[in-house]
Amino acid sequence: MQGCTGTVLNNNDIRAVHWCDDTLYLLDQRLLPGSQQELQLESVREVAAAISDMVVRGAPAIGVAAAYGVVMAARDRYAEDPARWQEDFTLDMRSLEGARPTAVNLGWAIERMRKAIPAEGDPFPVLLAEAHAILAEDVQSNRRMGELGAACFDAPGDVITHCNTGSLATGGYGTALGVIRNAYNRGLVSRIYAGETRPWMQGARLTAWELIQEDIPCTLLVEGAAAHLMSHGGIKWVIVGADRIAANGDVANKIGTYSLAVLARYHGVKFMVVAPVSTIDSTVASGKEIPIEHRPPEEVLHFRGDPIAAQGAEGFNPAFDITPANLVDILVTERGVLRQPNVESISSLFSAH
Amino acid sequence: MQGCTGTVLNNNDIRAVHWCDDTLYLLDQRLLPGSQQELQLESVREVAAAISDMVVRGAPAIGVAAAYGVVMAARDRYAEDPARWQEDFTLDMRSLEGARPTAVNLGWAIERMRKAIPAEGDPFPVLLAEAHAILAEDVQSNRRMGELGAACFDAPGDVITHCNTGSLATGGYGTALGVIRNAYNRGLVSRIYAGETRPWMQGARLTAWELIQEDIPCTLLVEGAAAHLMSHGGIKWVIVGADRIAANGDVANKIGTYSLAVLARYHGVKFMVVAPVSTIDSTVASGKEIPIEHRPPEEVLHFRGDPIAAQGAEGFNPAFDITPANLVDILVTERGVLRQPNVESISSLFSAH
Repeated sequence: MQGCTGTVLNNNDIRAVHWCDDTLYLLDQRLLPGSQQELQLESVREVAAAISDMVVRGAPAIGVAAAYGVVMAARDRYAEDPARWQEDFTLDMRSLEGARPTAVNLGWAIERMRKAIPAEGDPFPVLLAEAHAILAEDVQSNRRMGELGAACFDAPGDVITHCNTGSLATGGYGTALGVIRNAYNRGLVSRIYAGETRPWMQGARLTAWELIQEDIPCTLLVEGAAAHLMSHGGIKWVIVGADRIAANGDVANKIGTYSLAVLARYHGVKFMVVAPVSTIDSTVASGKEIPIEHRPPEEVLHFRGDPIAAQGAEGFNPAFDITPANLVDILVTERGVLRQPNVESISSLFSAH
Repeated sequence: MQGCTGTVLNNNDIRAVHWCDDTLYLLDQRLLPGSQQELQLESVREVAAAISDMVVRGAPAIGVAAAYGVVMAARDRYAEDPARWQEDFTLDMRSLEGARPTAVNLGWAIERMRKAIPAEGDPFPVLLAEAHAILAEDVQSNRRMGELGAACFDAPGDVITHCNTGSLATGGYGTALGVIRNAYNRGLVSRIYAGETRPWMQGARLTAWELIQEDIPCTLLVEGAAAHLMSHGGIKWVIVGADRIAANGDVANKIGTYSLAVLARYHGVKFMVVAPVSTIDSTVASGKEIPIEHRPPEEVLHFRGDPIAAQGAEGFNPAFDITPANLVDILVTERGVLRQPNVESISSLFSAH
C-alpha cells in the first residue's frame, strides 16, 4: 500500500480500495465524478453491503475488497472466541460471497484467503499480508495485460469500450482500460469511445473521469450509437473486461457487452476481452451456467432517485450478459494472449502453472 | 379536430398537436411523463423553435405541426401585405424546413401546403383546411398501417420497440406503436419491451406513458440489454418507425435502430418498419444521402441539466442512424406491406397512386 491517508486521489493514484490503520477505505463510486468521498468500513458486514450496493464495483476490485472483508471477519471472530472463531467466520463468508452473484473474483478471493488461514494462532497478520498480496498481484497482472493487449494492435485505430475497467474496477491500472492506456501511450489509439453504460453510467461517470485525469481524449456515446459509429469506419477494436469467464471461453460482463460483440463481428471490428485468470471459472462449462444478477427495476425506471418513466412501467434490469466465446477474437490474460479462445486454450492457461 | 380546449388529455385522446381558436397547441413532450403541459404557439417562428427544441418530435407529428406553422406564416404575411405576402413567406418556409434536417415529413408537409396555396385571395381558410386534412389523413393512415402490420403476425410473440412512435409522434394512434396496439388487441402480443432510448428517453418517458394509459403491459430496458433479451427467446419482432426512407428502402430512424436491426437479424427476430408513404423520400437514392442530425453533446453529457460525466469528456450525439434495406424484413405503409423492400417495390407504392 502506498501511503496511508483517507482521501488521497492524485491523478495517477486512483484507488478504489485501500487499507490503512486496520480499516478498509472504499472510494464511493456511486458519487463519482461529482464528489470524491471514501467510506471507512469496519466489518465484513459493511463490506458485503458496500459490494451489494455498488460502492465498489468491477470484478477485480470486488475481489480485493472481499479479501479485506475476510481479514476483518477473521480478526473480529478470532477476538470473540480464539478457539472456535471459524464457525461464525464460515457464516460470514457465506454472506460475503452472496453479495453479488456474477463476478467470480468474489468467490475466488474468499477461497484464496481461506487457504491462507494459518493452522493455529491469530489469523490476522497472515490474512492481511495475503490481502495485500492479492491487491499487489492484481496491479501487476493489469500492467502485464496492458503490455500484452497493446502488442496485439497491428495498426493504429480507435477503440470502443464499455462500462469501467480501469483503476476504479481493479486494484489499479485496469484490465481493458489498462490495454487502452498502454496502446494510447504507444500512439496506437487516438481516441477512446466510451459507452455510457446504462443504467449505472459507469462509462460516463467513471471511465471518462479516469481518462480525463490522464489527458486521454474520451468521447461518450449512448449504447444505441455504437453500431452507427462502427459503420462509419475508424473503430478497429471493442475492448472490454469480464466478470466471469466459463471454461469454454464464454464471457459474462456488464449488460451491453454481448450487443457490442455481435455488432463488432457484423462490422469486422475486433473484439478483445481483458481479464486476469482469477476471472476464469473452470467449474462452469459454459456461459449458460453463469448466474446473471437481476438488479432492482428501479435502477432503470429512475435516475438519481427521480422517476423517468410513467408509473406502472416495469423494468428489465439484468446487470450482465453472456458473450459466447465464438464472438471473442482475443482474450488477454496475465499469462498470455489467446486468439479465438476455446476450452483447450483456456485450460492450457492453468496447466502451465 | 375533436373539441377545442387547451389541455384535454383523456386516455384515448392523446394529442401531440392540435389547433384551436387560431392557435396551435403542442403538448410539451420534454416534460412528460412528470407534467402534462401544452404550449400555445402564435407564429411560424415559434413552431420552428418548438420543432428544433423537441417540444414536438416524431416525424409525422413534426409534419403536422409544420403544416400548422405554414398556416400561421401565410396568415401573418398576408395580413402584412396581401399583394406581396409570398416573398417573406418563402423565407419563413426556409427557416421552418431547417428546424430539423432528418425527418422528411417536415419538407413533405411544407411542400404539400405550398401546393394548396390559392392563386389569389386570403390563403388562410384553404391552408387551414389542408393542415386539418394532413392531420386527419395521418390518423387514418396509422389505423390502416395498424391493421396491415398486425396481419403480418403469423403467431403470437413479444415485441421490442424503440423511441416513441405512438400518438405523441404522429397525428394520433401511431405508426409502429399503432401496429403494436392493434396486435396487442388481437392477442398477438403479450408484452411490449420498450428501449428507453437514450439520450432523450422517449421510450421511458413517452412510450411507457402511452401504453400504460391503455393498460398494455410495458417493460423498459436499456438499449444494451436488447441483445441479451433477444438471446433468451420470446421476442418475435422488433417494430420501429422511420424519419426518412430512401428510394432503395434504407431507413433513417432514431439512433439505436440500426443496432436493433443488426441484433434482430443475428437472432432470427423479424424487423418491421412502419411509416406512411410521406416518409419515403424518392429524391434520395440511398441512406448515404440522408443528412444525419448531430445534436449538442450536452444531451449525452447531462441529464435533466445536471452533468453526468467528468468535465472534459466529449459527446457523440447523432440523433438518427441508417438501417440498410437488407436488414428490413417488412415495411408497412398505408398503401400496403412490402417484404424485403427494395427500389422496385418502393417505387410501385407511388406508381399505383
